[in-house]
Amino acid sequence: MNLRTDQIPQRELYRTLLIAIGPRPIAWVSTLSKDGTPNLAPFSFFNAVSATPPMLGFSPGIRRLPNGSEPKGTLLNVRDTREFVVNMVTFDLAERMNITSGEYEHGVNEFELAHLQTRPSQIVRPPQVAASPVSFECKLHQIVDFGQPVTGSLVIGEVVALYLDDKILHDGRLETDALDLIGRLGGAQYTRTTNRFEMERPVVKR
Amino acid sequence: MNLRTDQIPQRELYRTLLIAIGPRPIAWVSTLSKDGTPNLAPFSFFNAVSATPPMLGFSPGIRRLPNGSEPKGTLLNVRDTREFVVNMVTFDLAERMNITSGEYEHGVNEFELAHLQTRPSQIVRPPQVAASPVSFECKLHQIVDFGQPVTGSLVIGEVVALYLDDKILHDGRLETDALDLIGRLGGAQYTRTTNRFEMERPVVKR
Repeated sequence: MNLRTDQIPQRELYRTLLIAIGPRPIAWVSTLSKDGTPNLAPFSFFNAVSATPPMLGFSPGIRRLPNGSEPKGTLLNVRDTREFVVNMVTFDLAERMNITSGEYEHGVNEFELAHLQTRPSQIVRPPQVAASPVSFECKLHQIVDFGQPVTGSLVIGEVVALYLDDKILHDGRLETDALDLIGRLGGAQYTRTTNRFEMERPVVKR
Repeated sequence: MNLRTDQIPQRELYRTLLIAIGPRPIAWVSTLSKDGTPNLAPFSFFNAVSATPPMLGFSPGIRRLPNGSEPKGTLLNVRDTREFVVNMVTFDLAERMNITSGEYEHGVNEFELAHLQTRPSQIVRPPQVAASPVSFECKLHQIVDFGQPVTGSLVIGEVVALYLDDKILHDGRLETDALDLIGRLGGAQYTRTTNRFEMERPVVKR
């Protein structure tokens, strides 16, 4: 079936993107509000967008309310403070991550709500999820806005520091099989990354 | 272990990002050169970056050569023609996708190399991978360049049309379990999305 996107209802198009584009890595993003309240929320429109310089991007989307819409707390905080931390989500953290995905009032501290300890960052101010084995400290590089009026935003941050749990290192290096990461699929579905296979890239003589 | 990214060798930082950020969805991107030669290559720094308007982003990176570096064919083609198609990769397409990941000379037609049939697009000129069950036709919205000189780029395209194979539809809608997508991990690793679980988002009363 061929479809023009301008002929698909917005909600149906969103649903289709969520099912068709996967598996999506999950950024569990911690920020601080201007007054210092921590915020923690997961985003699966997320990936690295550059290796050199190291840049991560995620899209907070819009929060829909009965009487309109408002930007998510994470986006407000990043605009105000220009800093965020991306914590990676392993299978054992899935349930606590899901708790933080609720659309709580601004000012709710999701670390407390999900009974998550914090770990201090080295360079930026937002705290990290202590139970996450990998955290990326990011300084805001750019926000790309979409739509007129704005209905979507891509937050791009430069990774200035990272935390790697000693348990996942071998001789100081991150091991390929060290992380039991989960990914997001459509609907209420997630996937584990346990069903792995390997393919070497073809070597091309130039 | 805490690390500042400016103290990590470039190659090691890249390797770490590839292992720690996953599972990454794969964009199998088809483009046409100015003279009309098809190009097909996979990219795993890829995701949706906005739902409304529907926008996809992928990062082609830089191709390293013994005597320097050059932009990838895909990026050259997108800059020249401002159009691309993202084809999704299912498990049965893994090997053929991997063939197209080689760093071939510009001008090599990877469709022919991997024995892949094409399917015409509706709105843009680049052809689709006929064996892929989902293809997104995109018009270039913006290229965000990183580094001075440029060492990374993020290509953002607006989805103007999509192809959905009738086999994956139920009453005209894409089914949640319809796609046997694969994701990219670090090293030579990929993951299937067969080990799934579900979590409903918490309902928050406002």
